[in-house]
Amino acid sequence: MEWTFSDSVRLSLLSFSEASKACAALPGFSLFRRSLQPERIEYCRAELLPDCLVGSLAVPDKTHPLHLAFSLAFYLDRGQLILAADEQTLPALQSLLFPEEPLDTSDVFHLFFSFLESLIQEDMLYLQNFEKRLATIEESLLDTLPKELQRTLITIRRELLVFHAYYQQLLDMCEILSEDENHFLPPECARQFSRLGNRVDRLYDHTQMLREYALQIREMQQAQIDLRQNDTMRILTVVSTIFFPLSLIAGWYGMNFTHMPELSAPYAYFILIGVCILIVAVEIWYFKKKGWF
Amino acid sequence: MEWTFSDSVRLSLLSFSEASKACAALPGFSLFRRSLQPERIEYCRAELLPDCLVGSLAVPDKTHPLHLAFSLAFYLDRGQLILAADEQTLPALQSLLFPEEPLDTSDVFHLFFSFLESLIQEDMLYLQNFEKRLATIEESLLDTLPKELQRTLITIRRELLVFHAYYQQLLDMCEILSEDENHFLPPECARQFSRLGNRVDRLYDHTQMLREYALQIREMQQAQIDLRQNDTMRILTVVSTIFFPLSLIAGWYGMNFTHMPELSAPYAYFILIGVCILIVAVEIWYFKKKGWF
Amino acid sequence: MEWTFSDSVRLSLLSFSEASKACAALPGFSLFRRSLQPERIEYCRAELLPDCLVGSLAVPDKTHPLHLAFSLAFYLDRGQLILAADEQTLPALQSLLFPEEPLDTSDVFHLFFSFLESLIQEDMLYLQNFEKRLATIEESLLDTLPKELQRTLITIRRELLVFHAYYQQLLDMCEILSEDENHFLPPECARQFSRLGNRVDRLYDHTQMLREYALQIREMQQAQIDLRQNDTMRILTVVSTIFFPLSLIAGWYGMNFTHMPELSAPYAYFILIGVCILIVAVEIWYFKKKGWF
Amino acid sequence: MEWTFSDSVRLSLLSFSEASKACAALPGFSLFRRSLQPERIEYCRAELLPDCLVGSLAVPDKTHPLHLAFSLAFYLDRGQLILAADEQTLPALQSLLFPEEPLDTSDVFHLFFSFLESLIQEDMLYLQNFEKRLATIEESLLDTLPKELQRTLITIRRELLVFHAYYQQLLDMCEILSEDENHFLPPECARQFSRLGNRVDRLYDHTQMLREYALQIREMQQAQIDLRQNDTMRILTVVSTIFFPLSLIAGWYGMNFTHMPELSAPYAYFILIGVCILIVAVEIWYFKKKGWF
Amino acid sequence: MEWTFSDSVRLSLLSFSEASKACAALPGFSLFRRSLQPERIEYCRAELLPDCLVGSLAVPDKTHPLHLAFSLAFYLDRGQLILAADEQTLPALQSLLFPEEPLDTSDVFHLFFSFLESLIQEDMLYLQNFEKRLATIEESLLDTLPKELQRTLITIRRELLVFHAYYQQLLDMCEILSEDENHFLPPECARQFSRLGNRVDRLYDHTQMLREYALQIREMQQAQIDLRQNDTMRILTVVSTIFFPLSLIAGWYGMNFTHMPELSAPYAYFILIGVCILIVAVEIWYFKKKGWF
Ligand SMILES: [Mg+2]
Ligand SMILES: [Mg+2]
Ligand SMILES: [Mg+2]
Ligand SMILES: [Mg+2]
Ligand SMILES: [Mg+2]
Ligand SMILES: [Mg+2]
Ligand SMILES: [Mg+2]
Ligand SMILES: [Mg+2]
Ligand SMILES: [Mg+2]
Ligand SMILES: [Mg+2]
Ligand SMILES: [Mg+2]
Ligand SMILES: [Mg+2]
Ligand SMILES: [Mg+2]
Ligand SMILES: [Mg+2]
Ligand SMILES: [Mg+2]
Ligand SMILES: [Mg+2]
Ligand SMILES: [Mg+2]
Ligand SMILES: [Mg+2]
Ligand SMILES: [Mg+2]
Ligand SMILES: [Mg+2]
Ligand SMILES: [Mg+2]
Ligand SMILES: [Mg+2]
Ligand SMILES: [Mg+2]
Ligand SMILES: [Mg+2]
Ligand SMILES: [Mg+2]
Ligand SMILES: [Mg+2]
Ligand SMILES: [Mg+2]
Ligand SMILES: [Mg+2]
Ligand SMILES: [Mg+2]
Ligand SMILES: [Mg+2]
Ligand SMILES: [Mg+2]
Repeated sequence: MEWTFSDSVRLSLLSFSEASKACAALPGFSLFRRSLQPERIEYCRAELLPDCLVGSLAVPDKTHPLHLAFSLAFYLDRGQLILAADEQTLPALQSLLFPEEPLDTSDVFHLFFSFLESLIQEDMLYLQNFEKRLATIEESLLDTLPKELQRTLITIRRELLVFHAYYQQLLDMCEILSEDENHFLPPECARQFSRLGNRVDRLYDHTQMLREYALQIREMQQAQIDLRQNDTMRILTVVSTIFFPLSLIAGWYGMNFTHMPELSAPYAYFILIGVCILIVAVEIWYFKKKGWF
Repeated sequence: MEWTFSDSVRLSLLSFSEASKACAALPGFSLFRRSLQPERIEYCRAELLPDCLVGSLAVPDKTHPLHLAFSLAFYLDRGQLILAADEQTLPALQSLLFPEEPLDTSDVFHLFFSFLESLIQEDMLYLQNFEKRLATIEESLLDTLPKELQRTLITIRRELLVFHAYYQQLLDMCEILSEDENHFLPPECARQFSRLGNRVDRLYDHTQMLREYALQIREMQQAQIDLRQNDTMRILTVVSTIFFPLSLIAGWYGMNFTHMPELSAPYAYFILIGVCILIVAVEIWYFKKKGWF
Repeated sequence: MEWTFSDSVRLSLLSFSEASKACAALPGFSLFRRSLQPERIEYCRAELLPDCLVGSLAVPDKTHPLHLAFSLAFYLDRGQLILAADEQTLPALQSLLFPEEPLDTSDVFHLFFSFLESLIQEDMLYLQNFEKRLATIEESLLDTLPKELQRTLITIRRELLVFHAYYQQLLDMCEILSEDENHFLPPECARQFSRLGNRVDRLYDHTQMLREYALQIREMQQAQIDLRQNDTMRILTVVSTIFFPLSLIAGWYGMNFTHMPELSAPYAYFILIGVCILIVAVEIWYFKKKGWF
Repeated sequence: MEWTFSDSVRLSLLSFSEASKACAALPGFSLFRRSLQPERIEYCRAELLPDCLVGSLAVPDKTHPLHLAFSLAFYLDRGQLILAADEQTLPALQSLLFPEEPLDTSDVFHLFFSFLESLIQEDMLYLQNFEKRLATIEESLLDTLPKELQRTLITIRRELLVFHAYYQQLLDMCEILSEDENHFLPPECARQFSRLGNRVDRLYDHTQMLREYALQIREMQQAQIDLRQNDTMRILTVVSTIFFPLSLIAGWYGMNFTHMPELSAPYAYFILIGVCILIVAVEIWYFKKKGWF
Repeated sequence: MEWTFSDSVRLSLLSFSEASKACAALPGFSLFRRSLQPERIEYCRAELLPDCLVGSLAVPDKTHPLHLAFSLAFYLDRGQLILAADEQTLPALQSLLFPEEPLDTSDVFHLFFSFLESLIQEDMLYLQNFEKRLATIEESLLDTLPKELQRTLITIRRELLVFHAYYQQLLDMCEILSEDENHFLPPECARQFSRLGNRVDRLYDHTQMLREYALQIREMQQAQIDLRQNDTMRILTVVSTIFFPLSLIAGWYGMNFTHMPELSAPYAYFILIGVCILIVAVEIWYFKKKGWF
C-alpha cells in the first residue's frame, strides 16, 4: 500500500518480499535488506546513513508482553517512509498508521516522529497497571498460597524485563536520532527526538522502579516462607518436647522388672499423673517465656 | 485564580478544564494539553520549547509517601506562569504558593525557581526522620516479633523507593533546565537550577544511603531468623538425642520374652537407673562441648 | 597463504612462526609480536598506532562457548592485512575469510571491517537460541529433578558470561576504531565501525537481559526448593503431632501400676478408641484450618 | 574569634548566632543563612556564587563514626574565611585550625584548601584499621558465637556506609571546586582541588572495597550458619534412623497378644539382640558411606 | 644506588631515609615526602605537578595476593626518575629494574613507562591461572566436602578483590598520565599511557568476569547445600512416617486393659503383621509417587 500526502511525503507499507523488490535500487539497501526477514527483527534500532535512515522496530504486545505485537523494518529518506512487515501483520499496522489522532504529515520526518511517538503514547498508563497488579500481590501476600503468588510475580518480573529491554533500545534509537551525526534530520526534528528520548527515559526509570518493587515483594515473600518454616519447626519442637518426657515415663513404668517398688506404692499412679501435669505446665511456661506461643 | 505581581510576572492557578480553554492559543499548547488530565501526571518532568517551558509535577505526600500530595501541570513563558491542577487540590496548592517565606516574584523565572525550591526545602529534615525510624527498627530487632518489624521495614523501603524515583525525576528536570539548550532562561537562573540540581542530588544520594541501610537491617533480620531456626533445630535435636535412648531402654525392658535374665537380676532396676543417668550425663557433656547449650 | 586483491589490498594468513619472521621489519612489530603466541591471545583488542593497527581476536566457539573457536593476531597497515594464528586453525580461518557472501575487498579497511562484521553476523539468532533454552528450562521447572535443571542452568549462565565478556571486548574495540585518534582510518570507515559498535552493544544488552532472565529462573528454582522443604517439614510436623499423643496414650495404659482403675473399667478400651479418634479428628480439623493440607 | 594573617587573609570562627548577625550584609548571605542551624548541616557541600563560596561540612567522628565529629557552615570570599558552628564545638574546631603542621595561610584559598586537606590527612591509615578489624573477624569466624560476630560485622558495615556517603559528598565538593565555573578560585588552586578529589576518590574506592570485603565475610558467615544447620539436621536424622527401628522392635515384643510364638522360642531374646546390633551396624555403614559421619 | 643512562636519563633507587635527604630541594618535595613512609603507601597513584610527577605504587604479590610484593614512592622530572622504597625491598626492586628484556632508556619518560608496563606484563597469564583454579573448584563441587571448598573459594574471591582494587588504581593512574593536563609528558608518551590504560582495563574486566564466575560457583554451592538439606529432611520425614504408625500399633497392643478382644482373637498376631506390611507398602508406594526415593 502507498499513500501520498504531498510531493515530498510518501508512505509505503509493504510486505517483506515486496520491499526486497521495490527498494533494491535505493541507497543503503544492503543495510535495509538485513532486516527484511521476520526472524531477524529482534530489536528496535536505527542506523543513520548520509542520505537515509534504516532500522527496525520490535514492539512487545501489551496484552501478552512476552510476545511481539509486531515487528517491522523501516527506511526513511528525504521524500518517503517505507515500512516493511510480515504479510499477516500488515492490516494491524495499517490501523496503527491511522489512529484517532492522525499522524503529523507535514513532512516525512514528522511523519516518522509522530509514528514513533504514537507507539509509547499510552505506555505510562500501561505501566501504572503493572504497579496496581504489584500492589494487589503485595496486599494478598499473607492470605494466598505462596505457589500461585510466586507464579504471578515471576510472570510480572519477566514482562518488566521485556519492557526494560524495549525502552533501552528505544532510548538508544532516540539518542542516535537526536545526535544526528550526518545532519540528515532538520534540527527542530532532532530536538523532538531528544524530547522523545527524555520521555522514554522516564518510562525506562519507571520500569526500573517497578522491577525493584517486584524484587521487594519477592523478598517479602521469601522472608514470609522463612518465617512460616520457623513456625513449623517450632511447632514440631514444642510437640516433641512435650510428648517425649511423658512417653518416656509411660514406657518406663511399662518395664517388666520383677522388683520396681514404685509400681505397687500406694497412690503411685495418681502421683505420677500429677508429676506429668507439672512437667507439661513447666514446659508450657518455658515456651511462653520464649515467646513460642 | 490569577495574581499579577508586575507587568511581566503573572501567575495563574487553574483547574484542568479552565486551563484547556484559557491556554488553547498559546504556543506549545499541544504539549501542555497532554498533561491536563489528572491520571496523566505521574512524573516530574520539564520540556523546553523555544518560547516556553512545559511540564508537570507529581509530588509524594510526606505523611503518606505512597500517595501523591498533589500533581500539577505547568506552563511558563516569558511573561506568565500557569499552574493547572485538579479542582480539589487547588486550595492546597494556593497555600503552597504563599508560604511564610514568600516566593521570589522579581521575574517569572525566579517565581518558578523559588516555587520548585520550596518543594524540597524541608526534605533533608524529612529524610533524617527516615534515618531515625530505621535506627529504631535496628535497635528493637532483637526484642520484637519478626513479622511486625518485617512489615514496618517493607513500608519504609517502599516509601524510600518512591522518593528515589521522585528525586531522580527532579534531577533530570534540573539538568534540562540548567543546560537550557534553547537559551530560554536567563543565564543566572540556569545556574540557580544547576545548584538546585546539586541539592536534589544530595537528597538522592541520601535516599540511596537510607535504602542501603534498610537493606542492611533486612539482612540482619534475615540472619537473625536463620539463627533462631538453628536454635530451634538444635533444641529438637538435643531433646531427641536425650529421650530416644532412654525410651528405647524403657521399651526394651517392657518386652514380654519369657526368658529375659536382666528382669529378675537383683538390683537390675537400680543399675538401669544409674545407666540412664550416665547416658544423659554423657550426652549433656557432649552437647556442652559442642557449644549447643 | 597470501591473496592480492588489488595493488593496495593484500591479505596474508600466516602461522605464528611465519608471522614472526615475515613481519619483523614492519613498524609496530614490537607490539604485534606480543600476540604471536597462542596462549597470549585471550581478548579481542585493537591498538591504533600512527601507521598501523595491531590487535588480536579471541572468538568463543558457538557450539562449545566455554572454548575458543579460534584466536588470531592481526596487523593492518594501509596496504595489507596480516592474520596470524595457530597452525592447526589456519584451514578453519581460511574458510571464514571466503564465506558465501564474500568480504568487501574494495580497500584494506573495508576488508578488515567486513571480516569483523562477518564474525557477529549470526549472533542475534544465536542469542535467540539461548532464550529458547531458558524458556524451556522455565517451563520444565516444576516437573524435573532440581539437580539436573541446576546443572543446565549453571552451564547456560557460564556461557552467557563468556559472551558478556566477548561483546564487551568487541565494544571496546569498535570504540577505539570509531574514535580513530590517529586518523588512520578513512572517516567513512570509522563511521562504519561506530555502527558496528551499536550492533555489538545491542548484542551485549541482549546478553545482559538473558543473564537476568537466567537469574530470575535461578531465583524461581531457589524459591521452589524452599517451598518443597516447607512441605517436607509440614508433613513431618503433621505426622508427629498426630502420632505422638496416640503413642503416649498407648504407652500410658501399658504401664504396670498395680492400681490403675481405668484398665478394668467397663468399656474403657472402647471409650479410649473413641477418645483417640476424637483427638485425630480435632488435629486434622486444626491443620485443615491452618491450610496445611 | 578572629585571626588576621595578612591584609587579605582573615579567618573568623563564629557561633551560629554570631554569624547570623556578622554576615547579614555579605553577598550570598541568603544561601549562607540556610546552614546556620545545627540540625540543618547533614552534608558536606559547596556552592559557588560569583563572588563567594558557601557550604557546609559534616564530618563523621572517627572514634564513633555513627555520630558527627563536628558540623560547620563556611563562607569564603576573596578576603576572608568564615566558619560557623555550634557554640559547644567551637573549642574543638579551634584546635583543628591550628594543628602541628600549620595550615597554609599564603592566601584565603590556600587556607581553605589546607583546612579541607587536613580533614582527610589520616583517613587512609584509618581505613587500614577497618581492614584489620575485618580480617580479625574473618579469622575468628569459625571459633566465635555467630551472634556476636554478626553484631560486630553489622556495626562495621554501618560505619563503612557512613564513610561511603561522606567521601561521596567530599568528591562532589571537590569536583565543583575544581571545575570552578565562575572562575572564583585561582587556577592553580582549582588544580589542587582536582588532586584532592583524586585522593578522596581513592579513599572512596577503598571504602567500597572494604564494603565488599565485609559483604564477603557476611556471606561466609551465612554459609557457615547453613552448614551448621545441615549438621544439626543430619544428627537428628541419624539419631532417629538408628532409634526408630529398635524402638519399634522393643514395642513390638511388648505387645500382649496371647499367641506370639517368638516370645517363648528358645534363645529368642538373644537372637533379637543380635538382630538389633546388625541393624545398627548396617545403618552406621550406610551413613558412613554417605559421608554423614 | 644510581644509574646514569645518558645526560638526561638518570635513575636512582633509594631507601626512604636517603630519599628524604636527597630530594628535599626538589620542586614538589612536600607532596613526595607524604609517601616516604612505608605504612603510607597503600595505593597506586600519580599526581602531575607542572614540572614533575609524584606518586606511589603498591603492587600485590602474585604468590600471596593478600600481601604486597613491594611498595615504592616515585618522583619523575624531566631528567631523572627517583624510586624510594623500604630498605629491605631494595634488592628485589633492583632485579625488577633489570629484567631479561631491558627497560627502554631512550628518555626518562620511556624508562618510567616501560617500568610500569613490566609490572603487568605477565598478568594476563596470571589471571588465566585463577580461571583454572575456579574451573577446578566447579568440577569438584559435587565430590568434596563443602567446608573446604568454601574456604578455597573465599580465598580466591578475596584475592580477586585485591586485584580488582589494584587494576582500578592503575587505571586511574593511566588516565591521569594519558590526559596529562600540564603537558608534562611528550604527546607520544601520553598516548602510550592511554594504550597501557586500555590493557589494564582489559585486565580489570577479566578480574570482574572472574569475580562473577566465583559468585556463580558460590551460588551453585549454596544451592547444593540447600538441596542436601532437603534430602536430609526428606529422609527424616520418610523414616518417621514409616515408623510412627508401626510403633503406635505395637504400643497399642501393649496396653494392659483387662478387656481387649483383639489380643485373644485367633490369628490376631499374624493379621496384625499383615496390616503392618500393608501400611509400609502403601507408604513406600506414596513416597515413590512423590519422587522421594
Ligand atoms: Mg525476550
Ligand atoms: Mg533519568
Ligand atoms: Mg535513567
Ligand atoms: Mg528507580
Ligand atoms: Mg531473598
Ligand atoms: Mg509509585
Ligand atoms: Mg553525588
Ligand atoms: Mg549522584
Ligand atoms: Mg551507592
Ligand atoms: Mg550493602
Ligand atoms: Mg545478599
Ligand atoms: Mg536473604
Ligand atoms: Mg573465560
Ligand atoms: Mg544500549
Ligand atoms: Mg549498553
Ligand atoms: Mg537489558
Ligand atoms: Mg532482577
Ligand atoms: Mg536465593
Ligand atoms: Mg547517617
Ligand atoms: Mg551514598
Ligand atoms: Mg578511582
Ligand atoms: Mg572510582
Ligand atoms: Mg574497589
Ligand atoms: Mg563480591
Ligand atoms: Mg546469603
Ligand atoms: Mg587490601
Ligand atoms: Mg572495557
Ligand atoms: Mg571496563
Ligand atoms: Mg565482564
Ligand atoms: Mg551473576
Ligand atoms: Mg544464595
